[in-house]
Amino acid sequence: MPKVVDPVERRQQVAEAVWRVISRDGLGRASMRHVAAEAGLSLGSLRHYFATHTELLTFSMRLVMDRGTARLRALEKLRPADGVYRTDPVYVVEMVVSSTLPLDAERQLEGEVWLAFLGATVSDPRLRAISDEIYDSVLGMERDMLAQLVRSGAATGLDLDLEAMRLHSLLDGLTVGAATRPERVTIERIRAIVRRHLLSLCE
Amino acid sequence: MPKVVDPVERRQQVAEAVWRVISRDGLGRASMRHVAAEAGLSLGSLRHYFATHTELLTFSMRLVMDRGTARLRALEKLRPADGVYRTDPVYVVEMVVSSTLPLDAERQLEGEVWLAFLGATVSDPRLRAISDEIYDSVLGMERDMLAQLVRSGAATGLDLDLEAMRLHSLLDGLTVGAATRPERVTIERIRAIVRRHLLSLCE
Repeated sequence: MPKVVDPVERRQQVAEAVWRVISRDGLGRASMRHVAAEAGLSLGSLRHYFATHTELLTFSMRLVMDRGTARLRALEKLRPADGVYRTDPVYVVEMVVSSTLPLDAERQLEGEVWLAFLGATVSDPRLRAISDEIYDSVLGMERDMLAQLVRSGAATGLDLDLEAMRLHSLLDGLTVGAATRPERVTIERIRAIVRRHLLSLCE
Repeated sequence: MPKVVDPVERRQQVAEAVWRVISRDGLGRASMRHVAAEAGLSLGSLRHYFATHTELLTFSMRLVMDRGTARLRALEKLRPADGVYRTDPVYVVEMVVSSTLPLDAERQLEGEVWLAFLGATVSDPRLRAISDEIYDSVLGMERDMLAQLVRSGAATGLDLDLEAMRLHSLLDGLTVGAATRPERVTIERIRAIVRRHLLSLCE
């Protein structure tokens, strides 16, 4: 009996092969041929799942983002129905915003791939459109989290739009640092910086 | 009489041609052939200035960084001999840290190119070494600027190492934003966020 392959799962496996190629050899090497070899597929089989190189890259980029937002949404379910946390609200916000940061090997790889794609968005409008869509979504979640801090009384007088963009930019910068120089921008440093940032909003 | 070309200047012109190719077509298109065409040179002439593709890319990356640090150092000369500013110290620091941000078309292009190179450092140790060298240098300058805030009495009790990395990460994130989505992360937003960040250090 032939092995039944779940096409959704197989597409994700191929996208993860794209990530490994990008991390090891750079985005410029993520051709259909190289990705097929990395995924252990023939070029014909790969084309069955991704008809074009553009489709392959956009799907692989979207998967990075989807993994991050899935982690965010999973944590958001912890929020009480009335939106007011009884436990330390800074701790809750810290946990949620940290879920997008490269704090383990899996997310470190995602951070490297995110950075490679981000560089490519400058000259590729299709990657750019996906990147903008995810940016708006994550920024909205970050703004919500800061609004929680205000609602719970932990912070007062925040300019939420400005602070959400400041927080988002800080997290982007930390992700860049973790992806490009992890021995300088360590996990411990990242945690300390995020905590310091959130506490400074509550002073 | 044949035209005399200053080789230093010509190498910079070629590097700027690399930047334009990266911004328009992506780093993957910055081959010797394409760059020669963009710079209006024959492939042979290009090889006279840059023997290898690696030499071409590393020089082009270094030039992005050199331009930024040159702007920083030019502003640092404004510092009084005793290191204590008489004018609003936050204003002075703001001016200095802003010098690395993409606040005009020239720096916007540099930001795009920086991002493309940064993505490539993940899989290219030579670009990585240059990137680390510049990171340490800029981080050191940012730490010095924060130390000025403390010395002038504007800020107290800062953990300088942590705050320098927090500031650097924020500026990196803003540069990423300006390079990839300038209609969202506008110059006005960037200025407001940097000012808010520095003022929050002085609260």
